Amino acid sequence: MRKIFHEIVSLDDAKSILWQNFNFTPIGVEEVAIGEAHGRVLAEDIIAAIDVPPFDRSTVDGYAVKAEDVFGAYEDRPVKLKVVGKIEAGDIPRVEVGYGQCVEIATGAPLPRGANAVVMVEFTKRINDELFVFKPVSPGENVMSAGSDIMIGEKIITKGKVLTPREIGVLAALGFDKVKVYAKPKVAVISTGNELVKPGRPLEPFKIYDVNSYAIASSAMEDGCEIISLTYAPDDEQKILDVVSSALEKSDVVLISGGTSAGAGDLVYRVLEKLGEVLVHGLAVKPGKPTAIAKCRGKLVVGLPGYPVSALMIYNVLVSPALRAMAGKALERRSFVKAKMAIRVSPSRGRREFLPVSLVLKDDGSISAYPLTGGSGAITTLSLADGYVEISEDVEYVDEDEEVEVRLFGEMIKPAEMTIIGSHCIGLEKLVEKLAIRGFKEVKLINVGSTGGLHAIKRGEADIAGTHLLDEVTGIYNIPFVERYGLKDVLLIEGYLREQGFILAKGNPKNIKSWEDLLREDVYFINRNKGSGTRVFVDLNLKKLAQERGLSFDDVVKMVRGYSFEAKTHSAVAAAVAQGRADVGVGIRSAASMYGLDFIPLTVEKYDFVVRKSSLKKSAVKEFIEILKSSSFKEELEKIPGFKALNPGNVLLEK
Amino acid sequence: MRKIFHEIVSLDDAKSILWQNFNFTPIGVEEVAIGEAHGRVLAEDIIAAIDVPPFDRSTVDGYAVKAEDVFGAYEDRPVKLKVVGKIEAGDIPRVEVGYGQCVEIATGAPLPRGANAVVMVEFTKRINDELFVFKPVSPGENVMSAGSDIMIGEKIITKGKVLTPREIGVLAALGFDKVKVYAKPKVAVISTGNELVKPGRPLEPFKIYDVNSYAIASSAMEDGCEIISLTYAPDDEQKILDVVSSALEKSDVVLISGGTSAGAGDLVYRVLEKLGEVLVHGLAVKPGKPTAIAKCRGKLVVGLPGYPVSALMIYNVLVSPALRAMAGKALERRSFVKAKMAIRVSPSRGRREFLPVSLVLKDDGSISAYPLTGGSGAITTLSLADGYVEISEDVEYVDEDEEVEVRLFGEMIKPAEMTIIGSHCIGLEKLVEKLAIRGFKEVKLINVGSTGGLHAIKRGEADIAGTHLLDEVTGIYNIPFVERYGLKDVLLIEGYLREQGFILAKGNPKNIKSWEDLLREDVYFINRNKGSGTRVFVDLNLKKLAQERGLSFDDVVKMVRGYSFEAKTHSAVAAAVAQGRADVGVGIRSAASMYGLDFIPLTVEKYDFVVRKSSLKKSAVKEFIEILKSSSFKEELEKIPGFKALNPGNVLLEK
Repeated sequence: MRKIFHEIVSLDDAKSILWQNFNFTPIGVEEVAIGEAHGRVLAEDIIAAIDVPPFDRSTVDGYAVKAEDVFGAYEDRPVKLKVVGKIEAGDIPRVEVGYGQCVEIATGAPLPRGANAVVMVEFTKRINDELFVFKPVSPGENVMSAGSDIMIGEKIITKGKVLTPREIGVLAALGFDKVKVYAKPKVAVISTGNELVKPGRPLEPFKIYDVNSYAIASSAMEDGCEIISLTYAPDDEQKILDVVSSALEKSDVVLISGGTSAGAGDLVYRVLEKLGEVLVHGLAVKPGKPTAIAKCRGKLVVGLPGYPVSALMIYNVLVSPALRAMAGKALERRSFVKAKMAIRVSPSRGRREFLPVSLVLKDDGSISAYPLTGGSGAITTLSLADGYVEISEDVEYVDEDEEVEVRLFGEMIKPAEMTIIGSHCIGLEKLVEKLAIRGFKEVKLINVGSTGGLHAIKRGEADIAGTHLLDEVTGIYNIPFVERYGLKDVLLIEGYLREQGFILAKGNPKNIKSWEDLLREDVYFINRNKGSGTRVFVDLNLKKLAQERGLSFDDVVKMVRGYSFEAKTHSAVAAAVAQGRADVGVGIRSAASMYGLDFIPLTVEKYDFVVRKSSLKKSAVKEFIEILKSSSFKEELEKIPGFKALNPGNVLLEK
Repeated sequence: MRKIFHEIVSLDDAKSILWQNFNFTPIGVEEVAIGEAHGRVLAEDIIAAIDVPPFDRSTVDGYAVKAEDVFGAYEDRPVKLKVVGKIEAGDIPRVEVGYGQCVEIATGAPLPRGANAVVMVEFTKRINDELFVFKPVSPGENVMSAGSDIMIGEKIITKGKVLTPREIGVLAALGFDKVKVYAKPKVAVISTGNELVKPGRPLEPFKIYDVNSYAIASSAMEDGCEIISLTYAPDDEQKILDVVSSALEKSDVVLISGGTSAGAGDLVYRVLEKLGEVLVHGLAVKPGKPTAIAKCRGKLVVGLPGYPVSALMIYNVLVSPALRAMAGKALERRSFVKAKMAIRVSPSRGRREFLPVSLVLKDDGSISAYPLTGGSGAITTLSLADGYVEISEDVEYVDEDEEVEVRLFGEMIKPAEMTIIGSHCIGLEKLVEKLAIRGFKEVKLINVGSTGGLHAIKRGEADIAGTHLLDEVTGIYNIPFVERYGLKDVLLIEGYLREQGFILAKGNPKNIKSWEDLLREDVYFINRNKGSGTRVFVDLNLKKLAQERGLSFDDVVKMVRGYSFEAKTHSAVAAAVAQGRADVGVGIRSAASMYGLDFIPLTVEKYDFVVRKSSLKKSAVKEFIEILKSSSFKEELEKIPGFKALNPGNVLLEK
């Protein structure tokens, strides 16, 4: 049997080994202009070298006076002063204020000698050189005295602070045009694996695109690093050695992804052993077992797992803190949120588990974390995962509604402001686009089919569900299902009509006309996912067919070639037909037109929206309904082939 | 009287006017490499052009089999198969699996013809070409079938999405090496005002450094813009006109700060009237009245107030959403937090008010917002302000503990993880530096003096307060004050000893020896702020002096020249003496040494720490105490002149 892993260590041990073997401190300091310092980490204490303000300064537009001159001033008995000059901001104050005198002064201008206060212009009346003051001032009023804000010698910003617009303003105020910041650690990212193709190049058969190096490089940039190279090596020990070797010359840290599994070669491990010392090889973590940590020529080299989600999680857990320390940043990104686990989860015992989750903002302001079960190799897991939950070795289960801490996959990731879960629809996609234009960008649109949407409404995870479910008995769309699924405190809002039918190759070469044709041996069908309204419609028709033929539904299903191939969207059905992977599928007319395919209409169905009443408070939901009701949307919608709107936004049912 | 403002409009009206006169939509689209796409906004829908995975793929290391061959396999009666080949990831599968056969397969490798499942290597034993399988698999097990993750035609990422490491990974997976993103709006920032000096240049008399343009430029960059120029114009109509005119040629938006007050010139307003149409001039907003909005050559020009905090708030409220819309971003930064107002606030009626606040994380996880009262012209207000609270025109007061929404001044601003409020100390600054090195960067250190620190502990806003208060009666430091201030659930933790004394010019030219010398006419004193332990110590000695002389304290105070000049830190006292602005001050020895000054010791005082017990849960607080106790810190501390540590970290009192 092949050697699997050397000695699998726990995550905590791996962390200790990592931090014991390296001194992760800032790698250097560089000077940057304050205009380029945004987001950088301050590498020096900022001590004021000037007083702020540097002189006694008027804080208003008005007249500089001796306070004692106007002590008795009142609305009905103003004090008269003589205006002896004028000082603008930036002027050198050459004039002096004597008793009975005043000087016109602008906001920010220096107080002239002799004056000790400023009367606001609003409380004066001027006639030529005479000024009438209607309100007294006390000494120092409307004056900011020299050094009262900041005094020379005060430490104003401490080393280690991340520079934001605020700190940059403070630096400017103190006269700094340049500032010392920590240098960005140089990171080389290498991907290995014969199966990898660089994005942008044509995909050869049995190859996949390289995902990890781009996602990892982007994360390292977010952690304050500079990516000095992003290279590839095939599964060849010498070639990997050459690439790692040259990467070590110019970088502070080398990250390699793929190739660390105990599969094909375990090449990366062997290369690391040749180039230095392997400190960790194999982690008791799920997913992320194939992780390697090495010290080569004094530098950190980490071999990350090949699966994208695993690679990203291990990066976040192990590598990110080290890189951040080298960049002078706080070890923790602090980009985590508290959430409640949406369903009970039983992790595998004895291994630390990282569970990718998707976050949903509930209308009480709390956040639900939905575990993603597509596996860490799936790209949909990657695209839906907002972050992950760390589950200890000794945890038996995490209960529904138990509070968990979710580490986000990016500093900019936020729980969605609105979640639409349900049936896929091109019209709905248009609506979401319009929402984005109006500023609502964080809308999560998850296509799980109509019934999945209704479940999501019931569990409080969706604000809106798009649905097109036909009741077999009454022939009514959607309305009966609100009751049937026990939905409460919801509105059913009218959407629009969509033509649903067979999507067929151009010219219908196989001459498919009816459901019966799906039973033909030469016809390949592409199905939709379980729970989608279209799947319900397909099954309904196949059941009828079975009845007509005196067969069982199962028998009919077995006769339909491709019945088990499930596409998740109408467009995916059309694409499958367009590329000849299937002869026929069921979907909406617009999907057929999009791919220039033939279409045989079967039904006109109602696509409506279930909205949780409590979600109506959310501004994104309000905007959604407003757009739905707008004539401009109706107009745009009806340009889509097969779409028609009657009274969109109309409340069909209240529960 | 001078013209003040044309017609002051409310903020809501100003917003309406702004959005009615401009169509703030993305200004363009550009293509960038995915490696540079981090943080950019997607300008196209991403539709999958490939299936993911593109072929049936093994998800584990193992053996590709016909599931039906191993149905009966069990631990004690393995099924024997013949190994007929091997497939690595990236290989083209040329071998076929017949009945009784299997093929060795690596994770990610394509499934060979004839196989429909993969047995994990863990459940097999191989002897040469013979494989023993100890566990059955069902068809499809450990296989990810083609298109099951993503199918051609599926919309995977919607236009408008901000690209994070996750999306960049997904783009790579789909083969995109470039991606269309919205172009960055080009912004020109202009500062006006004769009083302004560019940071980095020497500060001429009666001038101040330009703050606004840098803080505004940095904010605009954060909002997704490119700063194409950062220029300056003096208070000269023609020169301002020239600068704005040329800025309009190359930019999408022009932001001018300063010069919009009704003071000196109102020049910006006149320039904007010449170049186009002024839409708003004067806002019913506090602070921010001197705001101008104009449309010049079809472009937005905004005149921002001159005070930094006002400029930043008006930028955030009015300009930021417009720029974000032009950058294709969500209008709201969504960088706001809910907080509880720490004290009752009565805003000015009839005007919308923006209140700058400093945020403090309390140990129950809630956030307190402390209004900053230094005025929007103060740089300390800028440096302490984490954001601002918007208070409506009709609000009479915001009560203590009332929930408010705080808009942050930067996306990276977070409430502090630990707050230390109290007496300024160089030793404490060193300790905070050490904390920063250990990863705790978000420590707020506010110097308000010993008594201010104890008040902050009582109100729950400080985790730790540094204090050195001497009880006149008992001669004991700090301990009596814990009781006197009614502090509960706190620990008093031993800090260290500091030598306190007169800080004098090098060589003590004025021959100052005792407190009596402070009464001399030729001696200028620099005081400390009220509430500081040093101020208490100064006043104690002046009171003694008054008693000795049979004078009142007030009489003595009047005789001390400079008594009313208050520095907030020891270093600021030393700086004032070093620069001859004062002859003597009271402070710690280290401050004198730092500036090479003379020092006459007066007392050795105890500088200790009050820690809220509930704050002990915070990891930053734990680390603080650990550092305090460490021998390495003691060693470093005692290198500071005048510092001595006995049992730092020792609990002196528990309440």
